[in-house]
Amino acid sequence: MTKRKIVLAFSGGLDTSYALVSLREQGWEVLTANVDTGGLHSGEGEAVQARALELGSAGHVVVDARAELYERVISYAIKANYLRNGGYPSCVGAERLVQAEKVVQTALEHGADAVGHGSTGAGADHVRYDAVIRALAPTMEIITPIRDERLTREAESEYLRERGFEVSAKTTTYSINEGLIGTTIGGGETYGSWEYLPESAWTYTRSIADAPDEAVELLLGFDGGDVVSCTTPDGAPIDGTGPGTPNYAILKALNELGGTHGVGRGIHMGSTMVGNLARVGFEAPGMLILIAAHRELERLVLSNRQQATKASLGTTYGDLLHEAVYYDPILDDFRAFLDSSQRRVTGTVRVRLHKGTVVPLGSRSPFSLLDAAARQGVVYGYGSSLWTGEQARAFAHMYAMPGAIAQIAGHGAKPGD
Amino acid sequence: MTKRKIVLAFSGGLDTSYALVSLREQGWEVLTANVDTGGLHSGEGEAVQARALELGSAGHVVVDARAELYERVISYAIKANYLRNGGYPSCVGAERLVQAEKVVQTALEHGADAVGHGSTGAGADHVRYDAVIRALAPTMEIITPIRDERLTREAESEYLRERGFEVSAKTTTYSINEGLIGTTIGGGETYGSWEYLPESAWTYTRSIADAPDEAVELLLGFDGGDVVSCTTPDGAPIDGTGPGTPNYAILKALNELGGTHGVGRGIHMGSTMVGNLARVGFEAPGMLILIAAHRELERLVLSNRQQATKASLGTTYGDLLHEAVYYDPILDDFRAFLDSSQRRVTGTVRVRLHKGTVVPLGSRSPFSLLDAAARQGVVYGYGSSLWTGEQARAFAHMYAMPGAIAQIAGHGAKPGD
Amino acid sequence: MTKRKIVLAFSGGLDTSYALVSLREQGWEVLTANVDTGGLHSGEGEAVQARALELGSAGHVVVDARAELYERVISYAIKANYLRNGGYPSCVGAERLVQAEKVVQTALEHGADAVGHGSTGAGADHVRYDAVIRALAPTMEIITPIRDERLTREAESEYLRERGFEVSAKTTTYSINEGLIGTTIGGGETYGSWEYLPESAWTYTRSIADAPDEAVELLLGFDGGDVVSCTTPDGAPIDGTGPGTPNYAILKALNELGGTHGVGRGIHMGSTMVGNLARVGFEAPGMLILIAAHRELERLVLSNRQQATKASLGTTYGDLLHEAVYYDPILDDFRAFLDSSQRRVTGTVRVRLHKGTVVPLGSRSPFSLLDAAARQGVVYGYGSSLWTGEQARAFAHMYAMPGAIAQIAGHGAKPGD
Amino acid sequence: MTKRKIVLAFSGGLDTSYALVSLREQGWEVLTANVDTGGLHSGEGEAVQARALELGSAGHVVVDARAELYERVISYAIKANYLRNGGYPSCVGAERLVQAEKVVQTALEHGADAVGHGSTGAGADHVRYDAVIRALAPTMEIITPIRDERLTREAESEYLRERGFEVSAKTTTYSINEGLIGTTIGGGETYGSWEYLPESAWTYTRSIADAPDEAVELLLGFDGGDVVSCTTPDGAPIDGTGPGTPNYAILKALNELGGTHGVGRGIHMGSTMVGNLARVGFEAPGMLILIAAHRELERLVLSNRQQATKASLGTTYGDLLHEAVYYDPILDDFRAFLDSSQRRVTGTVRVRLHKGTVVPLGSRSPFSLLDAAARQGVVYGYGSSLWTGEQARAFAHMYAMPGAIAQIAGHGAKPGD
Repeated sequence: MTKRKIVLAFSGGLDTSYALVSLREQGWEVLTANVDTGGLHSGEGEAVQARALELGSAGHVVVDARAELYERVISYAIKANYLRNGGYPSCVGAERLVQAEKVVQTALEHGADAVGHGSTGAGADHVRYDAVIRALAPTMEIITPIRDERLTREAESEYLRERGFEVSAKTTTYSINEGLIGTTIGGGETYGSWEYLPESAWTYTRSIADAPDEAVELLLGFDGGDVVSCTTPDGAPIDGTGPGTPNYAILKALNELGGTHGVGRGIHMGSTMVGNLARVGFEAPGMLILIAAHRELERLVLSNRQQATKASLGTTYGDLLHEAVYYDPILDDFRAFLDSSQRRVTGTVRVRLHKGTVVPLGSRSPFSLLDAAARQGVVYGYGSSLWTGEQARAFAHMYAMPGAIAQIAGHGAKPGD
Repeated sequence: MTKRKIVLAFSGGLDTSYALVSLREQGWEVLTANVDTGGLHSGEGEAVQARALELGSAGHVVVDARAELYERVISYAIKANYLRNGGYPSCVGAERLVQAEKVVQTALEHGADAVGHGSTGAGADHVRYDAVIRALAPTMEIITPIRDERLTREAESEYLRERGFEVSAKTTTYSINEGLIGTTIGGGETYGSWEYLPESAWTYTRSIADAPDEAVELLLGFDGGDVVSCTTPDGAPIDGTGPGTPNYAILKALNELGGTHGVGRGIHMGSTMVGNLARVGFEAPGMLILIAAHRELERLVLSNRQQATKASLGTTYGDLLHEAVYYDPILDDFRAFLDSSQRRVTGTVRVRLHKGTVVPLGSRSPFSLLDAAARQGVVYGYGSSLWTGEQARAFAHMYAMPGAIAQIAGHGAKPGD
Repeated sequence: MTKRKIVLAFSGGLDTSYALVSLREQGWEVLTANVDTGGLHSGEGEAVQARALELGSAGHVVVDARAELYERVISYAIKANYLRNGGYPSCVGAERLVQAEKVVQTALEHGADAVGHGSTGAGADHVRYDAVIRALAPTMEIITPIRDERLTREAESEYLRERGFEVSAKTTTYSINEGLIGTTIGGGETYGSWEYLPESAWTYTRSIADAPDEAVELLLGFDGGDVVSCTTPDGAPIDGTGPGTPNYAILKALNELGGTHGVGRGIHMGSTMVGNLARVGFEAPGMLILIAAHRELERLVLSNRQQATKASLGTTYGDLLHEAVYYDPILDDFRAFLDSSQRRVTGTVRVRLHKGTVVPLGSRSPFSLLDAAARQGVVYGYGSSLWTGEQARAFAHMYAMPGAIAQIAGHGAKPGD
Repeated sequence: MTKRKIVLAFSGGLDTSYALVSLREQGWEVLTANVDTGGLHSGEGEAVQARALELGSAGHVVVDARAELYERVISYAIKANYLRNGGYPSCVGAERLVQAEKVVQTALEHGADAVGHGSTGAGADHVRYDAVIRALAPTMEIITPIRDERLTREAESEYLRERGFEVSAKTTTYSINEGLIGTTIGGGETYGSWEYLPESAWTYTRSIADAPDEAVELLLGFDGGDVVSCTTPDGAPIDGTGPGTPNYAILKALNELGGTHGVGRGIHMGSTMVGNLARVGFEAPGMLILIAAHRELERLVLSNRQQATKASLGTTYGDLLHEAVYYDPILDDFRAFLDSSQRRVTGTVRVRLHKGTVVPLGSRSPFSLLDAAARQGVVYGYGSSLWTGEQARAFAHMYAMPGAIAQIAGHGAKPGD
């Protein structure tokens, strides 16, 4: 009898290691899949593969999803200036989407009977994974040993050791999740709401105290809302970038440069779909820099109504994505709106990184509304060739009418009444 | 024949000085009114009064509007976490509202025939002033010499000098407007979009380089969304505050402390009601600190839906106020929404100020959603006593249904399609 | 050993009859609870009670929840002008809320160990019931035989007959659910999307053909957004109402009168929380009349911004309620907004019912914006004493500026480009 | 010396007749332009031209803008299901846009020095006209004799009679404005809010009493949200349509058929940009039928989120257009959103017209969500092959969690608290 085949999302960590061995012993042929969404350090891919084979993987598949992650997720997060609950560049959640898609695709390609993942049932990731699997492979079996068996990490370790596999004795206080969008740090202080993470908990960003005293200035180029270049004021590419560098590599370079300058740390609090409040540290310098610069450029080229509407729709869009509502067609409609709004978000932004701060210094664009008005003689604070004092006076008179009539109607909407 | 009487909003600056003398010479009995919205340095009130009398004011009225400004405007700006175009704590605009109300009220009390103000017709302030006057005194005459005559500052100076009044020769590059909410700085670099303001242009905030190397930590207490205390971690009140300090004084103290630590500088760009883009520097450390702390507390006690809806409605609310739509009854409805949302925004936030950054370190509240879940055995990242693995699995299955059915229906809303 | 006690929501229908007997045989002491939300015909309450006792109820509790249903649910549905997906006065869903609350309350009062309800697992009602139970009695056991056992109606009938209980042989094509808000009719044609319900399927509304040729005219009085009177043009109360009639009785009387005139039929289509599209017929004349009249009055007394914002928030509010998100505090905030908006929704609306149509003929209010403007000499289409032709001209000039500047900036947002 | 040239928007009515003669006498060379937006009865175009030439037009230009009006305005009004203040298919306002564009274009083509229109300064039309002119021809002079001179209709008549031109003595009680979208009727009863228009005031729709006793049933075909066919249930085209009939002709045919069946009458109340409340009768059967049918189809193929978001954005979109904010780029972004949402709004809707009612009887679509679920064994009210009873139960349990935790946290958001 042929063995049933499963494709297991495999990271090399304790949970997925346990899952691999356990599934194999239950008689599955286990293929392991590792999706690179930018979180791997150089050389780690090989280590993950070696571990998979050591634990009995019948085949290890590596998928480079960095470009797709940028195209599908990051690009729109920046276009929407999306920060979950006003502060957090939704990191892990969005990456799960693309990871799950790639794992399902691998399973379909290999004619697998099932997909496996190592999520617990306590957070939101298992919902994200299943949402993708169910939509793309409606009848595919889903195997999730950690969620189903609710084992402790100690029990998992013991299980592996009994079978002769080494398990690092290191008990990490924090659960770290690295990705291109950002790195998250959970555990310890984050289980409560009062304590901040200690210096030792952060992975690659520097503290403000340790950041250089000298600021650095960057020129960020955007085309249709997407970043296309990142240089020094002289036009030299920053480390890790150059002509033709893809946008995900610019983000990676900004993570490194921003982290050096103390940019990008924070702690996110927000409720999951099942109502429990989560608190988790994050390091995401690149996203915070890109969003700050992008928003500055939008101020130069978008109308107030565009900015206000984008802020509202962008929040809804990002929240839906974060909450694993990936396949509601409304997301397509939001992306159409966002793409339309970005047609003139083209230009350059000067940004200064200094001691944890990101300061947009200035911006310019062929679509600058400031230049357009100036060409007509309008300079704010001075007069204007486009209207006379008498016209201004009449405008103020008419503009006041609705409020005046409301007052006359007894609709006494005085502030503070 | 009795003279016709006008109440002139008077700041002591060139424009209102010209207006005072010019109106007097046209035969008006001119009463001057100065409304204190927190922008006066100690002792300046007397200087303004002296100048008014020197220039021929028939009577000078001083109105302390700081408490009302907080109650009516600042309190709701913080409850709404309002930042114009995502970054600017709308300063001058909101203060004009209360100033204009007080000037109209003074005019009505003194039986004046007219109200005067020194606004130009180039910006938005003249619209704000007239919106208030027209609503509260529908038939009151409005006299605005600067808007109507479109004089240059040189011509105004010359006019005053010819009549023997001293005019400071100092040609200021920047037009500075001080207030409790913030100080704005217009002119020079702000007429374009590329250059940042030089160090010399800022009034009281320090640069990041000059800010102390040592961070300072604060405890900010909130009750129903309003700040009620600001102490060191030991519970000692910060400079300028103490038991019973009104909230506007806490804001003032935070302006000073924040400014010392390099917090609060920025440049705002946004279009006025008549479509021209304005760019103006601002210093508003206190508002930025309070909003950061307030938002952190909201993350602990509000649902995601409350936060997202507040963000959207708060933007609309603040934008309407900024755009002088003061008397649409919708503002009352927004305030009712905001007040309702703040019923549990009570607690304490730990904030660190350091080198221009405001970092919320932690928070606690009797309404903490984190504590509520923890009491039931839910800790994010771990399991939960509230549901089993099987229930979690079934939830994920059902949660995926709408997307799966959409896919089956051919509504292929795959991200990036 | 004492028996464990359960309170079962009991309607007298097949599902709850089966549940009662089945639970009793499993050793439960079953108390039955029937919550009157306006759907009972005269005398049916007694029949339900008799059936409960016949089937072995250890005690039958009747709760009159009509006033609470109006206060908590209907009042805000009208204030929000809520129609699900633009057409359906969410009937059954909202009634479940109050029913479930009363059943839980009964269970707590009687020290019951469990709550039971007869919902299937196919629709949304079981989610509504459990949402209320879980929130109000977090550890209370929930017993749902129909959902768990997935029995056919035939099997349920057989089970009862075997035990000597009579079961009506009538096989109804349609599942009818009567309530104060409306009556729903599911089955047959509603399983597809193309066929309309036949004349025989409707319960109490007349067809347009059968409705009287003569129209009837009503005066509906509102106070703060709530209906307070319903009379003929002469001031005589309509059938079923009179001085002091509670608002739920006005709604009931309008259901009857409207139904006679062919008003209130429709078919609703909309997706449930788990993504399947539901189609169901409804008869809800009273709600449609009240919402039409209420909206007409709002047009007279609310600003455009209030109406547009209410429409958007009201949709969100109603959708959340429909989707069983009863306990998110955002609902309180929406109600605060709605209550504030209704402060001037006081006055009288003339409505004509004729052959299935509801025509608002006119309205008046002490807060009429039309009267307020007229008192100042503004009559639409004529001139105005509030502004001159020159002021009108200048206003148009200034109002055009933002668009003109956008065009100059190359933001060629011509319609249809 | 060459005369200065003006292009005058000319309808043949009193105001534009006066304007033509008056401008001519002031020395202008007056070209008249008549833009056909579907409001002309057969043969009236010739009468307008004859009148123009009689009054001294130096040349009369006729522009057929029906197709463009549909493409640019009507198509999106239907996609958005836009009804101003919940009831009025914004008629006149939207047509002014296209009229003004055509007049400006004519002026530019003829090298005119000015554009003229006959709007008063009391309503919103003059603002609409100027918004378009200012954006498309920033420096073009605008001449508006009626707005500027504020003449009475009697004075205008007298002026024309003195010069030997005939003026109809007929004093119409109502000002009628015919167009493809709808006909508006102002005057008399509409100056107050209490009285309805009498039977004699309506122009082409029948009363419900006079409408046929027999209903008519139609099949309306949509493709991507646009109507493409209108037939009897047998597939025969309705009067005035046929293969290849453009969509604006289908709308015209529906105006006629709907009007015969008593559909489409109403009275609109809403505030203009300057705050005065306007009340005006309208007849718009076609738009009401198309929107009802279009919305029914959307219920079959769009997700709930799409429908709710469309309702909110569509209201904002339509309101901006109504309020002459034609050139804010946000409109392009809204159109992109709407177009995206319509990709699957393809199918057929059965509609019954009867005694003033429009009843959607059924609908079908290749993108039907009902069919998609049914293919998977889901039938509402019955069970489902997609989930088990236990899964349904677990879903309800988890779905209840956020509310339960909120209750535990003391966020007692019970309805009605």
